[in-house]
Amino acid sequence: MYSQSIQKLIKIFTKFPTIGPRTAARFVFYLLKLPKEEIDNLISVISQLKADVKICKLCFIPFQNESELCEICSSQRRNKNLLCLVEKEIDLNSIEKTKKYSGLYFILGGTISNLKKKDIEKLKIKELEQRIKTDLKIKEIIIATNSTTEGQSTALYLERLLQPFNKKITRLARGLPIGGELEYADEETLSSALENRRSIV
Amino acid sequence: MYSQSIQKLIKIFTKFPTIGPRTAARFVFYLLKLPKEEIDNLISVISQLKADVKICKLCFIPFQNESELCEICSSQRRNKNLLCLVEKEIDLNSIEKTKKYSGLYFILGGTISNLKKKDIEKLKIKELEQRIKTDLKIKEIIIATNSTTEGQSTALYLERLLQPFNKKITRLARGLPIGGELEYADEETLSSALENRRSIV
Amino acid sequence: MYSQSIQKLIKIFTKFPTIGPRTAARFVFYLLKLPKEEIDNLISVISQLKADVKICKLCFIPFQNESELCEICSSQRRNKNLLCLVEKEIDLNSIEKTKKYSGLYFILGGTISNLKKKDIEKLKIKELEQRIKTDLKIKEIIIATNSTTEGQSTALYLERLLQPFNKKITRLARGLPIGGELEYADEETLSSALENRRSIV
Amino acid sequence: MYSQSIQKLIKIFTKFPTIGPRTAARFVFYLLKLPKEEIDNLISVISQLKADVKICKLCFIPFQNESELCEICSSQRRNKNLLCLVEKEIDLNSIEKTKKYSGLYFILGGTISNLKKKDIEKLKIKELEQRIKTDLKIKEIIIATNSTTEGQSTALYLERLLQPFNKKITRLARGLPIGGELEYADEETLSSALENRRSIV
Repeated sequence: MYSQSIQKLIKIFTKFPTIGPRTAARFVFYLLKLPKEEIDNLISVISQLKADVKICKLCFIPFQNESELCEICSSQRRNKNLLCLVEKEIDLNSIEKTKKYSGLYFILGGTISNLKKKDIEKLKIKELEQRIKTDLKIKEIIIATNSTTEGQSTALYLERLLQPFNKKITRLARGLPIGGELEYADEETLSSALENRRSIV
Repeated sequence: MYSQSIQKLIKIFTKFPTIGPRTAARFVFYLLKLPKEEIDNLISVISQLKADVKICKLCFIPFQNESELCEICSSQRRNKNLLCLVEKEIDLNSIEKTKKYSGLYFILGGTISNLKKKDIEKLKIKELEQRIKTDLKIKEIIIATNSTTEGQSTALYLERLLQPFNKKITRLARGLPIGGELEYADEETLSSALENRRSIV
Repeated sequence: MYSQSIQKLIKIFTKFPTIGPRTAARFVFYLLKLPKEEIDNLISVISQLKADVKICKLCFIPFQNESELCEICSSQRRNKNLLCLVEKEIDLNSIEKTKKYSGLYFILGGTISNLKKKDIEKLKIKELEQRIKTDLKIKEIIIATNSTTEGQSTALYLERLLQPFNKKITRLARGLPIGGELEYADEETLSSALENRRSIV
Repeated sequence: MYSQSIQKLIKIFTKFPTIGPRTAARFVFYLLKLPKEEIDNLISVISQLKADVKICKLCFIPFQNESELCEICSSQRRNKNLLCLVEKEIDLNSIEKTKKYSGLYFILGGTISNLKKKDIEKLKIKELEQRIKTDLKIKEIIIATNSTTEGQSTALYLERLLQPFNKKITRLARGLPIGGELEYADEETLSSALENRRSIV
């Protein structure tokens, strides 16, 4: 029902994460009302994005500075013995916000829902193996994938893959989240919360 | 925590309708992974949008053809006696999808939540008055704003504004929506459903 | 895992409308902590319920007074020309709360999801036919079932059933409920809202 | 609007946990339609409940057998060194379902949202102190309150209360629940998930 150029842009926005055709249409009408300067600004920021932002060769974080490596990988203050594997950039950001982790990261770039070759090739598996082989400072690898089905399949795959490297391998604790109630917790979550119970000092 | 260009683009996307900072960040990481051709295509479609799409002078629908007016306003088949006032483009599209309306439209461009001059100036009030004054074929004006608080305030404002024009003024019927239950309906909705009850032929 | 008497009561409460086993268990532990007087009171009110409450022979509302008929059916102030058919007692109560209806009611006792004999027999169909045959004051029958799939099937069944009686038959208006938005309304709801649009005086 | 006995019973049901006036009304209409035998059965089970069910003097679980103590407290197979403090009966049941805990329990009977005397007196604090003083087998006390605000306040209160007893005091682990995502986890949950990370064998 919408005109051709509008439909073309709706189709592109529908590929954006979490966006359906209705929100995509709202984006287009929003852009149609935007002053020319703001449209120009949006276009210039998008077109500069890839030029401005480098991807760190070690951890695959997007970053922006003169150096070869991102701020975390090039920092003297980070603990080089810890390598935390996360699914995506936003997860890394969530962990950084806690200010409780001082080690390094590796962004896998996704999850594996089954063991199909095509699925595995989307992840930076070769780069991860290479990294662990060559970086002798790494003592512990923390698998910090989500607790979703895909995240758990990916964790299992990584556990098997990383065992030959003879590093300590750990996973995020499972337990009751803030606000969680025993009555509504699934059995696995509650079992973990009990087994990993911590001492009060 | 994100680098400068990423933050700049997150800020722009956060102004898009319904988008918060988390989804805005996902958009940026999505764009960072997109092949150069697709980025170029997105930029070209956005930059062409305003050039390709005209805004109809009568109803303010965005459209795309050689004519001066949009397809609805220039059609010989539409009923020129009916003018339907809607808040925004998507509402017009929703009504067109029902295939039950053959009249013309007027897009107000928003809602009035209070009677502040600043708020009212955002809407195409002057254009609406001009349209009704000059278009003598209009016999009925249908106020088709949403049933939200803002939509209802806007409807009340329009009712008062349009009374001097001596046209028939109507509003969308209030009633039970599909799936609605009497038990959970508010009293105003249920009252309207009763008062506007329709005969079975 | 719970002891026998607790399990027995959980099973009974699970048959209460909307109650699952978890809430049923909470009910039992609540009762176990209740003082003896309150338990006794609950039991006495439940055991008196059926003795105290009569079911009106005309409309099937539960009521409680010396008369033969409920307060609505025996009132001189109600409009005897209108008969409103509702699925259940709570729906009647919802309509009474609007204070916009002054006619009489008939409680069907449920809905028909298909035309199986077993389903139809659960409803007071014979009593309804008898009522309409004998009560010559009835001029309009308002089918006020829910807009759910079951409510709509029941309405269709009733329409066909009641046609031979040569009364005016009406149904609740469909339309946008309070808070409703055109963008999210289904096509049938929006079509009805348009078709039944009402004039502003 | 409902008759007197119906209103009385609605009022009683509204005090049941999680039940509002609407569901309470549905309960009453459900009971009005129930055959006399089922009403009698409900009444008999409720009136027998307190006679049938004893409350264990050690852990305050409701139970039903000839012995003085509940099945868990009187079992030879349970680990007498562990005492798990839970808010209510259903939480104990949730832990038993995991089949990962073999120790004993103590039901507190609620939570403390502030340190008001009135609030504290609702909980079995004296009984808990008495239990810990006299039961010399207890080596570890597991505070298994919910992760809600009230549960956490209660846990803090218990920690302080129990410190003088010189027992090991532990709390359920906090972490990502099944299905949890790093992106949506609060900082405290994610910090705990990281700090309590567990080794893969």
